[in-house]
Amino acid sequence: MIIQLHQIEVLSKKDMEMIDITPEMDRLVDASGAKQGIVFVTTAHTTSSIVVTEGVECLERDIPAHLERLAPKNPPDGTYGYYHNRLLDFDGRLGYNAADHLKSLLGGIQTFFPIEDGKVVRGGRQRVYFVEWDGPLARTVFIQIIGQT
Amino acid sequence: MIIQLHQIEVLSKKDMEMIDITPEMDRLVDASGAKQGIVFVTTAHTTSSIVVTEGVECLERDIPAHLERLAPKNPPDGTYGYYHNRLLDFDGRLGYNAADHLKSLLGGIQTFFPIEDGKVVRGGRQRVYFVEWDGPLARTVFIQIIGQT
Amino acid sequence: MIIQLHQIEVLSKKDMEMIDITPEMDRLVDASGAKQGIVFVTTAHTTSSIVVTEGVECLERDIPAHLERLAPKNPPDGTYGYYHNRLLDFDGRLGYNAADHLKSLLGGIQTFFPIEDGKVVRGGRQRVYFVEWDGPLARTVFIQIIGQT
Repeated sequence: MIIQLHQIEVLSKKDMEMIDITPEMDRLVDASGAKQGIVFVTTAHTTSSIVVTEGVECLERDIPAHLERLAPKNPPDGTYGYYHNRLLDFDGRLGYNAADHLKSLLGGIQTFFPIEDGKVVRGGRQRVYFVEWDGPLARTVFIQIIGQT
Repeated sequence: MIIQLHQIEVLSKKDMEMIDITPEMDRLVDASGAKQGIVFVTTAHTTSSIVVTEGVECLERDIPAHLERLAPKNPPDGTYGYYHNRLLDFDGRLGYNAADHLKSLLGGIQTFFPIEDGKVVRGGRQRVYFVEWDGPLARTVFIQIIGQT
Repeated sequence: MIIQLHQIEVLSKKDMEMIDITPEMDRLVDASGAKQGIVFVTTAHTTSSIVVTEGVECLERDIPAHLERLAPKNPPDGTYGYYHNRLLDFDGRLGYNAADHLKSLLGGIQTFFPIEDGKVVRGGRQRVYFVEWDGPLARTVFIQIIGQT
């Protein structure tokens, strides 16, 4: 039984950003020697998501734009506010990132796909994205492979 | 160690539709010979979801209706638009299905349940649904069983 | 190969409530003897969620408050209604909990984390919460451990 845990680093460059990590996932599965099994992908952070969607640039714009509609960083005046304001440890400034935690919840934080004949099995249009909701930051993603040769 | 990967076909007949696939999941687990383990269910498509909820007709109406409120196919005039418009390959017409990708993201694309004593373990009200957001279409769902006899 | 299935009981005391179940998950993994593997956490109920977020009191308020905005128990007058009204079996009163099923869907019902060196591997801020959307109730959470010594 193969059980391998990897960490990959993802560097976001914008406040919100979708980064396709499918190649890194596929490469780790190829290198694992697992012929059959499953690969699990999980972000290590609470203001980011792992999302599976079609790999097209227009969706990479629509998804952050719409999640910002559903959980706006700055709610419209006179509507509501968030309780969660905290000091961001990487630069000491006060952060108002409740909305980014909410986006993480709505988008989800993890996914998995089968491995068959040594390859990840996914739908023809399915790509795996790390989604930054509160960047730019250096981020970690756990990729675990369980299977057999 | 048992590792089995199955594909089932689901035929949606409407634009949005919830189809209970619990019987197919249970049947594959029964046939697998796995006494203990886990079953993973994942849609192969980016405009569909796998949702676990109570198996009642009224919720099968509420869930698509509410997801359409949260990610409307046609946003109200004067509000916002989607970037993602694409040619639908099955009939050559231009599709405006960004909202269906967003529904897929909000609803989620997969689930898993334990197997014990050869049976899927789930809550008394939990049913597993394939949810079509952009039908009617012929769809594929991956069902993977990992366990031991 | 270790495959263990546990059930833990969670008692919610409010209508909506976030209850940190990370200690129970960690304790079961410690006791399992699994050195490497994965732990799966799933609620048994269709009006609750399993959510991973930062363990701070303000977020424990923001998340229920915002999900209530996205799927309100009582939609604004003159907007829309839910189809799903049902008799609540624990007290015989009529329940209108369609919105709580919707919150369950948006928040998700399960999570998983790797096990390495006998410990659950998660990000420094990631805590696992059972989230009650329709309490107070006695609830069940499945915690399954798959791995090897």
